[in-house]
Amino acid sequence: MRRGEVLMSSQRATYEFRQVGDGDKTAKTDLFYREEIQLALRNRGMPLEGLRYDVTPTGMHYLLIHFDIPHASEDDWSLEIGGLVSRPATLDMDEVRARAPVSLPVTMECAGNGRALMEPRAISQPWLLEAIGTAEWTGTPLAPILEEAGVAGDAVELLFTGVDQGVQGGELQYYQRSLTIEQAMRDEVMLAYGMNGAPLQPQHGYPLRLLVPGWYGMTSVKWLTKIEAIAEPFDGFQQMRTYRYAQSADDVGDPVDLIRVRSVMIPPGVPDFLTRTRLVRRGAHTVRGRAWAGRLDVARVEFSEDGGHTWTDAELGPRLGEFAWRSWSAEWDAMPGERVLCVRATDEEGRIQPTEQPWNYQGMGNNMVHKVDARVE
Amino acid sequence: MRRGEVLMSSQRATYEFRQVGDGDKTAKTDLFYREEIQLALRNRGMPLEGLRYDVTPTGMHYLLIHFDIPHASEDDWSLEIGGLVSRPATLDMDEVRARAPVSLPVTMECAGNGRALMEPRAISQPWLLEAIGTAEWTGTPLAPILEEAGVAGDAVELLFTGVDQGVQGGELQYYQRSLTIEQAMRDEVMLAYGMNGAPLQPQHGYPLRLLVPGWYGMTSVKWLTKIEAIAEPFDGFQQMRTYRYAQSADDVGDPVDLIRVRSVMIPPGVPDFLTRTRLVRRGAHTVRGRAWAGRLDVARVEFSEDGGHTWTDAELGPRLGEFAWRSWSAEWDAMPGERVLCVRATDEEGRIQPTEQPWNYQGMGNNMVHKVDARVE
Repeated sequence: MRRGEVLMSSQRATYEFRQVGDGDKTAKTDLFYREEIQLALRNRGMPLEGLRYDVTPTGMHYLLIHFDIPHASEDDWSLEIGGLVSRPATLDMDEVRARAPVSLPVTMECAGNGRALMEPRAISQPWLLEAIGTAEWTGTPLAPILEEAGVAGDAVELLFTGVDQGVQGGELQYYQRSLTIEQAMRDEVMLAYGMNGAPLQPQHGYPLRLLVPGWYGMTSVKWLTKIEAIAEPFDGFQQMRTYRYAQSADDVGDPVDLIRVRSVMIPPGVPDFLTRTRLVRRGAHTVRGRAWAGRLDVARVEFSEDGGHTWTDAELGPRLGEFAWRSWSAEWDAMPGERVLCVRATDEEGRIQPTEQPWNYQGMGNNMVHKVDARVE
Repeated sequence: MRRGEVLMSSQRATYEFRQVGDGDKTAKTDLFYREEIQLALRNRGMPLEGLRYDVTPTGMHYLLIHFDIPHASEDDWSLEIGGLVSRPATLDMDEVRARAPVSLPVTMECAGNGRALMEPRAISQPWLLEAIGTAEWTGTPLAPILEEAGVAGDAVELLFTGVDQGVQGGELQYYQRSLTIEQAMRDEVMLAYGMNGAPLQPQHGYPLRLLVPGWYGMTSVKWLTKIEAIAEPFDGFQQMRTYRYAQSADDVGDPVDLIRVRSVMIPPGVPDFLTRTRLVRRGAHTVRGRAWAGRLDVARVEFSEDGGHTWTDAELGPRLGEFAWRSWSAEWDAMPGERVLCVRATDEEGRIQPTEQPWNYQGMGNNMVHKVDARVE
């Protein structure tokens, strides 16, 4: 098999963003397919009580892995920098680590976070709201490496390739994403080899990954082995056929890029094992959570105990970093009864989380208001 | 709310091990409920390519958490030892760590591993085969602590209580499990505070958990705060109403205890993103995996490329420890076509993994042969 080879037709239908009920928006969406369960068991979410940590413990950070976690060793790892550059180079891990180090707390979120809350929904990784995490990433800035390589004037994008390989949309491929030269040259973009003070764990891209703060996670290519300057915009599967804000299977839509404003709460009280409904003691509670908006700051967080009919301002904690979340807290006097707790955030440019989800075909960028069912006793 | 308080009737039906299709064994079981997705997104499996590691990286080890991950600090943690003992004691974490340390590699598995492969299945955490992991656990043996406390002659069990609280089966409870005195006094049972050379991560029981090698994971109570010697066998929810080999909702069944023999393979080739079907190059492959049998050793592992019609012996690697898995490998000459790869193990007492699953109502202890669909091209 060669990279990019198109498989026989019986396999091409394996991933076309099928929809529950074939796109009938009135279909029941509370049933999930075995394919979705398989993905949910591999791709890990951060249980929302993990919002209590400024920096997510490594083993609690969300993960989305398209293919397999590759078997990699830093001893023989190499990063190739080529394509339309005047000085192609190959760096080993010692050379990467010998470069100027940088550490940055970054809140990362999967573009598909909230997909399983859409009706109907795309058949893919069925995230509710747990595809988030904040880590302290350590690496070296990408821009100086690109400057040393000398990106040619006719190059329009940089293509990033991981060693993880598999079939998606009927096409055998390595995981690949591109950025424009301008996007890739930003100060915060780094080649990361450390997470929370330790080497990357295998599932987070060991030994080397791209990290693009402010963007949804698909851009931060794991197990990075090649960077190529290219003359035409990359039109591969992960760029043009998925990670799109599309309205139908045929709609190319707009590219998914920066993380949208969102706030999430630590569900108060204690859970029911199966339904995850919360049981809460009557009386005074401080409800806490986190809010983020990619590159932007969060200007406001509001809390509601009545399903979003009335809102009160939450108190904002400090921003953990330029690309990381803020904590927030809201005082709540819980009276007996059934409650629907909500939280919503507004970014510094005035965009507010929607109460009703603007649907899209692939289930991308769903930043609808977080709602938690609670029974107060 | 008080511990053990029975909730109002509207909540009591939330967890009764409902079955897909209400127990109709001909019901379609390829659809999953939202409750199952919610649990799958919280409770993390080890992707099977993680079988390549002798010791599972911490962030890849499986997790099953009934309620929430509690907010704990070792600074004010205390372990109370009481009930029918002559010298009740309370230990803080410094006192626990000052005791004789021990480290042990242990393969842990969730009792519900394989539940979602049963037809019909119980509505609970819908594991396929990924609820496994091997860690190097560090702690101190439990037996000397019990000897110092002086367990009374009329005590029959020790009850272990975690601080994690929630509702299950309509009952508000702390997570609790018991062991007989004899089971608890075994040399390998420990109070663990370290995992893979670091303090426990919050989701693995920080700062202190019970570790009972050879048993399914439900016995290794996380966030352990109390040990009580009791005069009657514990009849709480986690002991008598779940973790049972039962045939119906009314059948109390037999208790789930020691891990059954099992072998699992690293799926060869590369995956299709959605179906996880494997695409494999024709030619010679070495298929690898792990096999374990709780306290027992694995005597034999066999591999099949034809769905279990014919078997060949795999080569066994060394046992990683008395309670940990063995590696195995099998040579496979892959010829083009659709293949169903299988692996099965036999323990040192002659028990072999079943080809057809003996069904049970709660979906416990499913150690059926591992099968992987592969297309060889």
